[in-house]
Amino acid sequence: MLPIAFLGPQGTFAEQAARTFAGAELDSYEFVPARTVSLALGAVRDGEVELACVPVENSVEGAVGTTMDGLAVGAPLEAVAEVLLPIRFSVLVRPGTPAAKVRTVASHPHALAQVQTWLEEHLPDAEAQAATSTAAAAVGVAKGEFDAAVTAPVAAVHYPLEEFATGVADVGDAVTRFFVLARPGRTPAPTGADRTSVVAVAERNRTGVLAEMLTELALRGINLSRIESRPLKGRFGEYRFYLDFDGHLAEQRVGDALAALHRRCRDLRFLGSYPRADRGVTSAEPGNTDADYVAAAGWLAGLRDDQARLASTGTRSNSKPNSDR
Amino acid sequence: MLPIAFLGPQGTFAEQAARTFAGAELDSYEFVPARTVSLALGAVRDGEVELACVPVENSVEGAVGTTMDGLAVGAPLEAVAEVLLPIRFSVLVRPGTPAAKVRTVASHPHALAQVQTWLEEHLPDAEAQAATSTAAAAVGVAKGEFDAAVTAPVAAVHYPLEEFATGVADVGDAVTRFFVLARPGRTPAPTGADRTSVVAVAERNRTGVLAEMLTELALRGINLSRIESRPLKGRFGEYRFYLDFDGHLAEQRVGDALAALHRRCRDLRFLGSYPRADRGVTSAEPGNTDADYVAAAGWLAGLRDDQARLASTGTRSNSKPNSDR
Amino acid sequence: MLPIAFLGPQGTFAEQAARTFAGAELDSYEFVPARTVSLALGAVRDGEVELACVPVENSVEGAVGTTMDGLAVGAPLEAVAEVLLPIRFSVLVRPGTPAAKVRTVASHPHALAQVQTWLEEHLPDAEAQAATSTAAAAVGVAKGEFDAAVTAPVAAVHYPLEEFATGVADVGDAVTRFFVLARPGRTPAPTGADRTSVVAVAERNRTGVLAEMLTELALRGINLSRIESRPLKGRFGEYRFYLDFDGHLAEQRVGDALAALHRRCRDLRFLGSYPRADRGVTSAEPGNTDADYVAAAGWLAGLRDDQARLASTGTRSNSKPNSDR
Amino acid sequence: MLPIAFLGPQGTFAEQAARTFAGAELDSYEFVPARTVSLALGAVRDGEVELACVPVENSVEGAVGTTMDGLAVGAPLEAVAEVLLPIRFSVLVRPGTPAAKVRTVASHPHALAQVQTWLEEHLPDAEAQAATSTAAAAVGVAKGEFDAAVTAPVAAVHYPLEEFATGVADVGDAVTRFFVLARPGRTPAPTGADRTSVVAVAERNRTGVLAEMLTELALRGINLSRIESRPLKGRFGEYRFYLDFDGHLAEQRVGDALAALHRRCRDLRFLGSYPRADRGVTSAEPGNTDADYVAAAGWLAGLRDDQARLASTGTRSNSKPNSDR
Repeated sequence: MLPIAFLGPQGTFAEQAARTFAGAELDSYEFVPARTVSLALGAVRDGEVELACVPVENSVEGAVGTTMDGLAVGAPLEAVAEVLLPIRFSVLVRPGTPAAKVRTVASHPHALAQVQTWLEEHLPDAEAQAATSTAAAAVGVAKGEFDAAVTAPVAAVHYPLEEFATGVADVGDAVTRFFVLARPGRTPAPTGADRTSVVAVAERNRTGVLAEMLTELALRGINLSRIESRPLKGRFGEYRFYLDFDGHLAEQRVGDALAALHRRCRDLRFLGSYPRADRGVTSAEPGNTDADYVAAAGWLAGLRDDQARLASTGTRSNSKPNSDR
Repeated sequence: MLPIAFLGPQGTFAEQAARTFAGAELDSYEFVPARTVSLALGAVRDGEVELACVPVENSVEGAVGTTMDGLAVGAPLEAVAEVLLPIRFSVLVRPGTPAAKVRTVASHPHALAQVQTWLEEHLPDAEAQAATSTAAAAVGVAKGEFDAAVTAPVAAVHYPLEEFATGVADVGDAVTRFFVLARPGRTPAPTGADRTSVVAVAERNRTGVLAEMLTELALRGINLSRIESRPLKGRFGEYRFYLDFDGHLAEQRVGDALAALHRRCRDLRFLGSYPRADRGVTSAEPGNTDADYVAAAGWLAGLRDDQARLASTGTRSNSKPNSDR
Repeated sequence: MLPIAFLGPQGTFAEQAARTFAGAELDSYEFVPARTVSLALGAVRDGEVELACVPVENSVEGAVGTTMDGLAVGAPLEAVAEVLLPIRFSVLVRPGTPAAKVRTVASHPHALAQVQTWLEEHLPDAEAQAATSTAAAAVGVAKGEFDAAVTAPVAAVHYPLEEFATGVADVGDAVTRFFVLARPGRTPAPTGADRTSVVAVAERNRTGVLAEMLTELALRGINLSRIESRPLKGRFGEYRFYLDFDGHLAEQRVGDALAALHRRCRDLRFLGSYPRADRGVTSAEPGNTDADYVAAAGWLAGLRDDQARLASTGTRSNSKPNSDR
Repeated sequence: MLPIAFLGPQGTFAEQAARTFAGAELDSYEFVPARTVSLALGAVRDGEVELACVPVENSVEGAVGTTMDGLAVGAPLEAVAEVLLPIRFSVLVRPGTPAAKVRTVASHPHALAQVQTWLEEHLPDAEAQAATSTAAAAVGVAKGEFDAAVTAPVAAVHYPLEEFATGVADVGDAVTRFFVLARPGRTPAPTGADRTSVVAVAERNRTGVLAEMLTELALRGINLSRIESRPLKGRFGEYRFYLDFDGHLAEQRVGDALAALHRRCRDLRFLGSYPRADRGVTSAEPGNTDADYVAAAGWLAGLRDDQARLASTGTRSNSKPNSDR
């Protein structure tokens, strides 16, 4: 069984995401809770586990800072998958608890905030109580400290509680995006519907440097799907840029763009090429297909070969024939 | 007294930031706690208060999603100031409590996470307890529910507690950035060290659209200081872009860039021009000074004037003389 | 009658172009030959004539340097029309001259070069003789110095000669482009199918300056139709750039682009907006229509108005509604 | 002896340029006049000669269309040198001819135009006569058809004439630029002060395509030194672009830019990398040095290698260390 760490404790959305990743092969994985994102990443780095599933971005809350920071420094890790999980909560109670008996409802403050309207409607008399995680709230209910917990659905698997309600969410379409991370060397094969992530530190304080970086992508027809800036070393004013864009490391134009960013940046880290969770197929426009890159590289190599010798035959073409297109 | 809302309850870092903004004129302001960011923004929109102080971005946690979303929709609000607050906590206890008696220490889970190392060293036996806010933790200590609370320093002003420790932070240089927001019409005069913020929704799914937006800034010599993408309406795949850049609405090149972004975007919202908290002076390169813009506009107007009449005198110059530079 | 100078003497292609420009209103113009391009330009500048018709560019020979240079310095002139003239020659002889009697054929060396194949086929025994212009060759034939002259068709109007052949050209589709120039103040009204010309001197020796200039056009959706570089003051290494692009001075995006080029250049001269000879209609993409420019300027003005007063009503929108598109 | 064709007949500026190219090794070359540029280029293509020296660009007249067109089509040729020749004429007469006896002065019309002021001052009574070339004028003087010829200085070597005047030019600093062309395979080694020439046909009618091509150069820090557009196949509206830029095919950034242009263009032809006649040294900015390209390519190769195998050791770095700079 392949050990996969997740941001625990047992019963979190991260576990739910890890199980989604496993899909039909649930039995091939051992799910290992980690207390923090840092510990989850460290477990992969140290080889204790092979994979880690951690949240990257929440459509309501935004980027998950500890994951972003944890990927930018330390031994390199690469995403081998992304998982999009709709954020819908279950409300768990001890078996047989009626609504009238729910006087306290506990969860992580963020989760409480996301079901506030639902609580006001369905459990108007219950007092909200903070817990350090949704799963800790479930533990508290099991122990009798609280009457109800707002949790990920998977929490019902681990605790002796029953669903009072499920699919609960004030904002119907909130989604959290998770990365499944591995040590380098496991990049999945291209599927035609892939995404690539990097984190870049630009040369300091030069006007236009980010515009140039994005122009490197745009000139190669590569669609940027997300950009995030995070202050470097806790200071504002100098930033790391996290870029997600369409395509796979194995594609010529993506490799070419990565090399261009590498030259242009003070620091560039590859965070993986992996299948897009939305299966959106990427296509390269004429001039940016793999064939165009191969043709251009071959043409250039031909020119340079000629330089090394006196080509008496003159059969080499230094021109790209119109018939290419 | 000018009423200013802050993300409460009393004793939060947002109150601390509002007081920092007030500075020497503390007595001119009435500080009004609001339970959520949305309520604080709403209070300004409704005219209940004149200003609101809310967190925008934390150097550890990243962007504050609710503030970002709250500014992008609803009646327009504009930042009239930014405040940078070093995140250093106080640990408050009931007067006279010795370390040995601190068995529980409460705070918002994020605050607990930021002082975890300090707690392990100085209060190794205390159990961490979640609260819905740092201030709620202080209230809990006052009520005897917890023994210590990790709070903003200003909490000591409001609650009958004493400082067990202050200046506490695992990461020494964490900073939170706050906006002081107002209804439109209060844009501060330019200081020469200003920043401008906008939120933009680009045309959907066109490769290179963000590169073009940033190129509009770069071509005018405008330095981008921050960029953030937030999924639109809870969906990934379509994003709002939050841009902070150097300069002031009143500057020609900034106005010109704003107009260009307006043309290029499906939706563009001005979030204010305000003095930079770091006082960093902005300078325009030759070709992008206000004088250059005025000269170019005058030249163009001259050309167009000529078009409307038959200029028999021929004294108008359609050329920019070399001596301009 | 409106006097129009042309690059003479009588019977040149420039006269032919001037007559093409006059079209049905031939009688409204007085056609005045000028010995050189400089003299033709000077006659307009001095007010001796109202218009001048001079060659700009030949599809075989390339740009006409003296015209290019003459427009870049001195009192400003602006094109009010362009004329495209297919270069097809007539071969003129004294009335009644049979092929067998044509022993010498004269013309400007460039004209001789363009009919060389025709001469080899039709007058294989005739010796080619250089003349200072095609019209001078016609004069020489009239005087009996030569037997045949290769000329513009219009030469037959002026000299007592007859057409031995007409429509003669080795390269069937050679075309010369002429400008009809005037003193500033006569810019024709926009037709929807217009072209604008400028000559720019960029800041010296800065890498990428021309790329930036062209990006200013591209970002506004303006199609460049021609670019030419000419060494400045007879030196290589520093160049003037002649740009022709689609659109008219009266269009918002064109005016905006001109102002941007003006800021970016050491010297920028407007060379006119005039109807395209090929009648190719220009269209502005969404984001670059006049309406978009007007909307953006209005939005910006609104923001700036707010700055000057305390807007107590709060009714102003600082946002571009989605419904714009 | 290495045969080198030049645009003849004997005594032209092209011969003068070929001799300048030969320099101290004059005896190693056999100078072969060709009647037209096309014939000169054809002689190299057919292997009759090894090199050809033809004019490319004149600082007064502009680009030489026949050379430009001749290089763009047919079997590929590449420049191995450029020669800059100040255009100063000699006036040749039969030995012993005094000024008073000079009643006719002959030359190519272009040459006559460039010495017109000098003639008015020094030979006010002489009548100007057209000849098909400067050298043809010298032949005519030798034969007694004319009294004086305006020629390249080298003409005095070939004809039994003497210098009446030398260093003659109305515009003191006119310069003609010549290419020395060879079949592919002779690219000179990089000198650090090199130039590269290409001719490109862009995708038809796409707004911004030239801006993108120049941006490909600018992003790599490559300085464009000249740009020329020539109508394609005798039609206006579709153009070939001739680009000259700093650097040598053997440089990484130049090769990378050439490959990018190749992908972007319908047709791209390499016209050579050769030492700059002005010896201006080119330097690459940080991020665009050969070392940066090698580092980026190595980094990318490392990433891709990882993909093909399960890297159990985890020793590969996917990051560019800060210490690079």
